[in-house]
Amino acid sequence: MSRTVLMLPGDGIGPEIVAEAEKVLNKVNDQFDLGLSFETGLVGGAALDATDSPLPDDTLDKARKADAILLGAVGGPKWDGLPMAKRPEKGLLGLRSNLELFANLRPAILYPQLASASSLKPEVVSGLDIMIVRELTGGIYFGQPRGVRELESGERQGYNTYAYTESEIRRIGRVAFEAAQQRGKKLCSVDKANVLEVTVLWREIMNDLRREYPDVELSHMYVDNAAMQLVRAPKQFDVIVTGNMFGDILSDEAAMLTGSIGMLPSASLNSEKQGMYEPCHGSAPDIAGKGVANPLATILSAAMMLRYSLGEEKAADAIEAAVSNVLDQGLRTADIMSDGSTQVSTRDMGEAVLKAL
Amino acid sequence: MSRTVLMLPGDGIGPEIVAEAEKVLNKVNDQFDLGLSFETGLVGGAALDATDSPLPDDTLDKARKADAILLGAVGGPKWDGLPMAKRPEKGLLGLRSNLELFANLRPAILYPQLASASSLKPEVVSGLDIMIVRELTGGIYFGQPRGVRELESGERQGYNTYAYTESEIRRIGRVAFEAAQQRGKKLCSVDKANVLEVTVLWREIMNDLRREYPDVELSHMYVDNAAMQLVRAPKQFDVIVTGNMFGDILSDEAAMLTGSIGMLPSASLNSEKQGMYEPCHGSAPDIAGKGVANPLATILSAAMMLRYSLGEEKAADAIEAAVSNVLDQGLRTADIMSDGSTQVSTRDMGEAVLKAL
Ligand SMILES: CC(C)[C@H](C(=O)O)[C@@H](O)C(=O)O
Ligand SMILES: CC(C)[C@H](C(=O)O)[C@@H](O)C(=O)O
Repeated sequence: MSRTVLMLPGDGIGPEIVAEAEKVLNKVNDQFDLGLSFETGLVGGAALDATDSPLPDDTLDKARKADAILLGAVGGPKWDGLPMAKRPEKGLLGLRSNLELFANLRPAILYPQLASASSLKPEVVSGLDIMIVRELTGGIYFGQPRGVRELESGERQGYNTYAYTESEIRRIGRVAFEAAQQRGKKLCSVDKANVLEVTVLWREIMNDLRREYPDVELSHMYVDNAAMQLVRAPKQFDVIVTGNMFGDILSDEAAMLTGSIGMLPSASLNSEKQGMYEPCHGSAPDIAGKGVANPLATILSAAMMLRYSLGEEKAADAIEAAVSNVLDQGLRTADIMSDGSTQVSTRDMGEAVLKAL
Repeated sequence: MSRTVLMLPGDGIGPEIVAEAEKVLNKVNDQFDLGLSFETGLVGGAALDATDSPLPDDTLDKARKADAILLGAVGGPKWDGLPMAKRPEKGLLGLRSNLELFANLRPAILYPQLASASSLKPEVVSGLDIMIVRELTGGIYFGQPRGVRELESGERQGYNTYAYTESEIRRIGRVAFEAAQQRGKKLCSVDKANVLEVTVLWREIMNDLRREYPDVELSHMYVDNAAMQLVRAPKQFDVIVTGNMFGDILSDEAAMLTGSIGMLPSASLNSEKQGMYEPCHGSAPDIAGKGVANPLATILSAAMMLRYSLGEEKAADAIEAAVSNVLDQGLRTADIMSDGSTQVSTRDMGEAVLKAL
């Protein structure tokens, strides 16, 4: 049994951090006899530069055939002026929609070793462990019609469409209820049902699903209140489920509560549990090529990949334990540096994880 | 010269907190000989119960004729099951759109006396003073088409439209640039121009306006990053300008950084500077009628009203000084209570402000 993992380094710090994760994957591949083989592809700005498309056919083919994908990050100022269809982000969005990776799992976990990195008071965030389940292939990101048109008055109007069907809502709802069952059995669905019709339907379907998961306590919260409650008392949440746009905003806000976004992995899954795994942070073009980026979110994304898409729980556990071990040793990249710790480079951090394995 | 202020207590704690603000307004009306006369109207759930409409014609007439409006809050679980057109929120949204109150100013200020109420570390928020300028009569809140339709497949789809015209963007942009000129001369425009066409136009128009305000430093930020940066380092911001939906989310997040949302006023202005003023917090049905709500955000909204719509700077200053004075005395309602302070009721807090005037 051979399984293929597609590595998509992308832009900015992407190549540096994916290189470290690849070393880690190679090591557990041997240690645990996983039978993984690796391929590489171009996506985002790197693909634009080489092929004039942010998602070349070759990459999409490989992605469809792969058992799982590990992505670095895409985008950067170099490509900012390009028209929408030619932006690095379209590579990422194209992968999400073509592979129907509708379920985006974004944990916001505070590592006890890094508690002081948070801008919040320790008592507010200590032990924080939230799972945000974001719908990833629908909503306003993909809604039609969209564009810029000229009105009769002669002025231009920009427009996008925010839409969800019952079945789109139901399938992400199921993922969220199931995640809650595995965790603290509390699910908070976030919408704006007092203003937006599409989220009235969202709320209705979530309420319907409740009957299938009687052991999960479902609550609803308006998105503005959720943005507040995450700041005020984030530990009230267990699993949060929401649409694509609200999920983009709230998952980044939740990630930043930990103060160490360089530590947070994410998974994007389809209904066959094929998945794309990537760090929550972006391509950080300002520090690209300097060897200072934190590879741990990507390494932890590789662990998530082993667990969710490849069914290799033990190898995933081993990686997570190794990461915890290097943090215990006091090793820190610049983004999570604090007094009394030892600052290390991207590569040193990768090596330390390898050694701890 | 007689000017009319319309009081709209609304629902939940609205009547209690507006009553205290009205006493304060009466007092400065006499002290500063402002020549204000007061009227009252029904809006939201209170109006629904009495007239079957969340915004009765009588209220809208009075609102059009008034020089300024002071609103408490609308909404509550009692009306949650009603169809969209019959929700208390429609009263508020109807006032905003009928009076073209497109410019929503939401300050997030940390009162030094209340610094400990924040869930963030003191060094992260001390001296915080952000002004969020939110577009209030366009975007996805009012975009057409909207609703729930049945698809050919037989399943339902909910949909809303996110749209802005050039002129809508330009007029809110001007308000924001002018606010920045009066303050720290830094303006951050928040959009999602890497995904949403409507915000590509938004960014273009903001860039155009830059030429008219060469003394203001304009920057752009994606909404997900803005949600993060508000948590990480909120003091990097001076004025933020954004659309209706993002503004709803970010202004609540920013308000909560202070830990004392019961203190924060807001203004919604049209191009004649006619305005509606309201506390940032909601109707808090859980504590309604108990006499424990904090009336200070409403009292400070009255001060904002005197300053922005009625040109009564001195009376506004006097109210703000009185509020600061009662905080110095250690008087606190339950929401901002801390060790060593004196807990007081809604009415006691109002009386204390009157005495300090
Ligand atoms: C890069 C961008 C298109 C993307 C998104 O908005 O989904 C990113 O912010 C994310 O959250 O993965
Ligand atoms: C009550 C609701 C319709 C309103 C909004 O979403 O604008 C409120 O949240 C606000 O921010 O004033």
